[in-house]
Amino acid sequence: MTAQAHKNRSPWVFNLDDDTQGIHRKLVSGIQTRIFPGQNVMLSVVRIEPNTTGTVHNHTEEQWGVLLKGECVRIQGDEEREMKPGDFWHTPGGVSHGIKTGSAGATVLDIFSPPREEYKKPGEGFGSANK
Amino acid sequence: MTAQAHKNRSPWVFNLDDDTQGIHRKLVSGIQTRIFPGQNVMLSVVRIEPNTTGTVHNHTEEQWGVLLKGECVRIQGDEEREMKPGDFWHTPGGVSHGIKTGSAGATVLDIFSPPREEYKKPGEGFGSANK
Repeated sequence: MTAQAHKNRSPWVFNLDDDTQGIHRKLVSGIQTRIFPGQNVMLSVVRIEPNTTGTVHNHTEEQWGVLLKGECVRIQGDEEREMKPGDFWHTPGGVSHGIKTGSAGATVLDIFSPPREEYKKPGEGFGSANK
Repeated sequence: MTAQAHKNRSPWVFNLDDDTQGIHRKLVSGIQTRIFPGQNVMLSVVRIEPNTTGTVHNHTEEQWGVLLKGECVRIQGDEEREMKPGDFWHTPGGVSHGIKTGSAGATVLDIFSPPREEYKKPGEGFGSANK
């Protein structure tokens, strides 16, 4: 079996650190993601460079985020919360949110339901996000 | 501000390792979970003890799993795949699946959409899963 054939044996298995997988999007300068769309839910593995701020925005889709590595400040509604690895958060549809990093940068697993249509293709930007 | 008041300030923030959070369920002997229901998607932080096997079952809800800690074998359809931390997998609705651990045990983040109704309350069992 070739390496490629082996790799394709289980198309339902992925790895958070495998940059060959997922649909690549640049959300904004310093924030890159890889998108994994499902039927009802979409995963997004987001890498945020140090000292980066993601625009505050909102969208109708429900979102959860899990801080996998590094540190960040999650902006949501009128709050700003410092997050450590293992912290996770819930953002109902329509709630304004953003993120910023310090010197450590961050890797975040975002979960969207329903899937965000505009994230199903490679490209740039937060999609049809408001604001 | 009391510690309790501080803790309640941001009800949208959680931690994967905080056993005081979530709805506790025992899925089967050796497998405990804490459930975090959203509107369209439900998170489940599952701890699987060493040398434990979860029953092969299926349900209509789409599921994703992320291996956070330890090691496991994911059973899905007619395949068995060894998983390391950072590996994640997609299980469309209706596909049979199960899990087993060796000496390391495992912590898995499961993601369900739509939310599994039977997991919105504390209790025991895989719910209405078919077998």
